[in-house]
Amino acid sequence: MTIRLCGRTVSSRSRFIPEGGHRCQKPAGHRGRCSEFHYLEHFGRTNKRLRAKIIRDATMTTGAAWKSDDAGPNRIRRWAMLLSDAELLPLGVDMAALRPIIVAKLREKAATYEACMSVAKKLTHSAYQMPGAPVCPPDIRSYLESHFGPFQSGSTTCLICREALPFDLFQNAVRGKAEIETAHRNPRFHSPENVGFAHRGCNIAQGPRTVDEFYDWIRGIIERVESN
Amino acid sequence: MTIRLCGRTVSSRSRFIPEGGHRCQKPAGHRGRCSEFHYLEHFGRTNKRLRAKIIRDATMTTGAAWKSDDAGPNRIRRWAMLLSDAELLPLGVDMAALRPIIVAKLREKAATYEACMSVAKKLTHSAYQMPGAPVCPPDIRSYLESHFGPFQSGSTTCLICREALPFDLFQNAVRGKAEIETAHRNPRFHSPENVGFAHRGCNIAQGPRTVDEFYDWIRGIIERVESN
Repeated sequence: MTIRLCGRTVSSRSRFIPEGGHRCQKPAGHRGRCSEFHYLEHFGRTNKRLRAKIIRDATMTTGAAWKSDDAGPNRIRRWAMLLSDAELLPLGVDMAALRPIIVAKLREKAATYEACMSVAKKLTHSAYQMPGAPVCPPDIRSYLESHFGPFQSGSTTCLICREALPFDLFQNAVRGKAEIETAHRNPRFHSPENVGFAHRGCNIAQGPRTVDEFYDWIRGIIERVESN
Repeated sequence: MTIRLCGRTVSSRSRFIPEGGHRCQKPAGHRGRCSEFHYLEHFGRTNKRLRAKIIRDATMTTGAAWKSDDAGPNRIRRWAMLLSDAELLPLGVDMAALRPIIVAKLREKAATYEACMSVAKKLTHSAYQMPGAPVCPPDIRSYLESHFGPFQSGSTTCLICREALPFDLFQNAVRGKAEIETAHRNPRFHSPENVGFAHRGCNIAQGPRTVDEFYDWIRGIIERVESN
């Protein structure tokens, strides 16, 4: 059902894909300029922070002490983490200077450019189906539906606790932290089937487990609590 | 059942209790020197880090960016957080210079000196009842039992998931973090009935909820998962 994409090279400031690896994601034969994130154009006008969040979560590793322990969290493109230490060094990233813990955290976030593009579309598809989400312009809707199936308005739930996830939670922040995070059914894989939005607290509770492991774990707790 | 304590003033470097508020915790009429933590003397010889952990968790607030955002986590006595900003300033703690988020986190950790002393004893009582714990010297055992009842060897479970908590987890650390943390049934109260040891992952999953709220929350998740 997925449509054929244009796939022409688009310019990008990213230095981690050689020979113009960034590709236009519009449908083949589209009119107008090529673009990587045309389906986020509506959120770009109505909810800039959400557009930025989707692109960031889809394409970047999460925070890690990057330049130094004191420099605070920083991010890098997920596909850069597919390159070897030797390939990264001339690109300005000295993996050997980082603590092994940080290296492991970053390397485990590695994903291909194509996977990241799919994840961004999947997250956009989910966002438009949250209760209270703005109406999706028809061209964007049909583009997203061609990738991931028909919208069911208001159907998006937290990937972990399965409760409805109201769109306006994107506006809220508790102690400076967004209330909605991008979560992974299996934290090791960054792919559209595996990602979704979740409450921040749920994502933290899941920890390094897969969602199924998390369910097994909490089932065990309830059994022990109730047998007492 | 609690025995009467000596209660004489002991010297301390802490500046947050005026007029010698630190008190000897030995039984009234004891022989030898007064001491605040005599019941940790055995762990002090056999497991120094555990002794330090019990005292730290019982008496100190958890990490917060103290001197500055860049200074990293720091700690302060829990009873200091009962003093007003005006009382703390001449003691070298400028609460007004901290971000409101940090102030809230610290103030919510406030507890009296007496509560902290009881918590330290309770944690020691729990530690000796973990599977694989060293045998407790009889004088320490009877002291702890006089506060919190008879030992049941190997009976200590994680406060949250209720699985047995083996003593040797105190030695383990994953990514530099200890595997056992001190947890609170209700995170707002620092009292012996309310504290216990827990797996780090369980403590994180509990988050700001009470343990009962946590159980209700995970019951709801299991219901939603199973109704799908």
